[in-house]
Amino acid sequence: MQIKPYERTAFYYETDQMGIIHHSNYIRWLEEARIDFMAKRGLSYDELERSGILIPVLGVSCDYRSSVVYNEAVIITVKVTSFTGIKFTAAYEITGKEDGRRKASASSKHCFVDRNWNPVKLKKMYPKIYEIFENALGEA
Amino acid sequence: MQIKPYERTAFYYETDQMGIIHHSNYIRWLEEARIDFMAKRGLSYDELERSGILIPVLGVSCDYRSSVVYNEAVIITVKVTSFTGIKFTAAYEITGKEDGRRKASASSKHCFVDRNWNPVKLKKMYPKIYEIFENALGEA
Amino acid sequence: MQIKPYERTAFYYETDQMGIIHHSNYIRWLEEARIDFMAKRGLSYDELERSGILIPVLGVSCDYRSSVVYNEAVIITVKVTSFTGIKFTAAYEITGKEDGRRKASASSKHCFVDRNWNPVKLKKMYPKIYEIFENALGEA
Amino acid sequence: MQIKPYERTAFYYETDQMGIIHHSNYIRWLEEARIDFMAKRGLSYDELERSGILIPVLGVSCDYRSSVVYNEAVIITVKVTSFTGIKFTAAYEITGKEDGRRKASASSKHCFVDRNWNPVKLKKMYPKIYEIFENALGEA
Repeated sequence: MQIKPYERTAFYYETDQMGIIHHSNYIRWLEEARIDFMAKRGLSYDELERSGILIPVLGVSCDYRSSVVYNEAVIITVKVTSFTGIKFTAAYEITGKEDGRRKASASSKHCFVDRNWNPVKLKKMYPKIYEIFENALGEA
Repeated sequence: MQIKPYERTAFYYETDQMGIIHHSNYIRWLEEARIDFMAKRGLSYDELERSGILIPVLGVSCDYRSSVVYNEAVIITVKVTSFTGIKFTAAYEITGKEDGRRKASASSKHCFVDRNWNPVKLKKMYPKIYEIFENALGEA
Repeated sequence: MQIKPYERTAFYYETDQMGIIHHSNYIRWLEEARIDFMAKRGLSYDELERSGILIPVLGVSCDYRSSVVYNEAVIITVKVTSFTGIKFTAAYEITGKEDGRRKASASSKHCFVDRNWNPVKLKKMYPKIYEIFENALGEA
Repeated sequence: MQIKPYERTAFYYETDQMGIIHHSNYIRWLEEARIDFMAKRGLSYDELERSGILIPVLGVSCDYRSSVVYNEAVIITVKVTSFTGIKFTAAYEITGKEDGRRKASASSKHCFVDRNWNPVKLKKMYPKIYEIFENALGEA
């Protein structure tokens, strides 16, 4: 089964006076794409948080290859590239929908914590979520 | 006693491709100025929230008179123009520090609520905070 | 003909520590909805800017009626409530897609300028754009 | 001579519903700190852009070590860790002013381009700017 990647069109307020999308917004787009990726695999981040699991960002890295301009549509693919049951890493490719150009390559690292910021071991406590990440890792 | 108004220099990421500060950022500056105004009168918004009082925004209005550009410093004056013990209204003037030009005139409406979003009557429950707002109203 | 209003789901990074969408983001949503409104009537803001017409914001006003939370979908209707050929005013209603609740009522004022920020008289110089706004005013 | 590092207090609108500063804002803080670093060494980014030199971001990386909360002051040190005359890399440490804790370690890569996005060779065309970066590299 092919799951559709995330698509996003750049907003006007995301531009800067260089006439391109400000680089900090890509980091926000990664979050959008990551949450969309989880949702399409049955994991609502919304419900996750309400059930007491937070997924903070431990690190983020982004290489900017070509500019995105206002109103340009980009496609963001997400892959889970590592998963330990306590942490995971995601890799992203941002590509122009029209021009097919690589816009950026990125990655982010995350852990699972409870409301007191204690680590959550998914396998034991949330086997269903564990399985979803295991499967996502298998897709990569 | 003259209390110094809030001063702020526009950041690069606040510009848009018109080459000016995007109008939505002024709304954020109002929040900065409002919180600074309270802090200078002895009310830490931080502590307020921790003690269980939230001050949500009921409404905001801003007239943009002349552009602010990147790296331009503005001075934001705040006045409490009405206060009922349950709600208050603030008025703002944003002025260029260098050119002395009026950049924007704005206002915002707020109420005081507890963590369950129930109204808080300051006079009875938090007389000290009530007094600070009463005094601020007197300054206007 | 019924033209579909703008729909938007709140992003995680638009929340604040009150647990709701920060009020400043609504001002950005208005821009998204306004640009979408124009696009659906044949006016690409992107092309407009490239052809030398800017539509700066002269004023904005927003009454917040109930909170929007993370991942909540809202529908934003736009009406052109006045149009002089040089300026226009838009009115907005933001409504929860699920709960049907009114989230916010807003308005914004705009003018048409060229790249040197001189007023543009649409009727004479850009009759087609003039007509689109005239028609949009008629819808209201 | 000791040049003071950049200091910044987290704004309310930079928080998210986890109750901490959203990670994307750190990327914006790096820009603030980098521009401040250049300004303190005689390079106004504002003037640089007006004279036709842009410094786009080629890549950014940030490891988040401990949370920053609303109203918390952080100190951001910047070092130029490589400089070729065409590109440079900067490294950053974000530290809590009060608690002295390491909040984040980051780096960013940049190049110098003209308004047509053609590379600018600083040594030949802008020897004074070249020298400033050479000296900054020496500080590291």
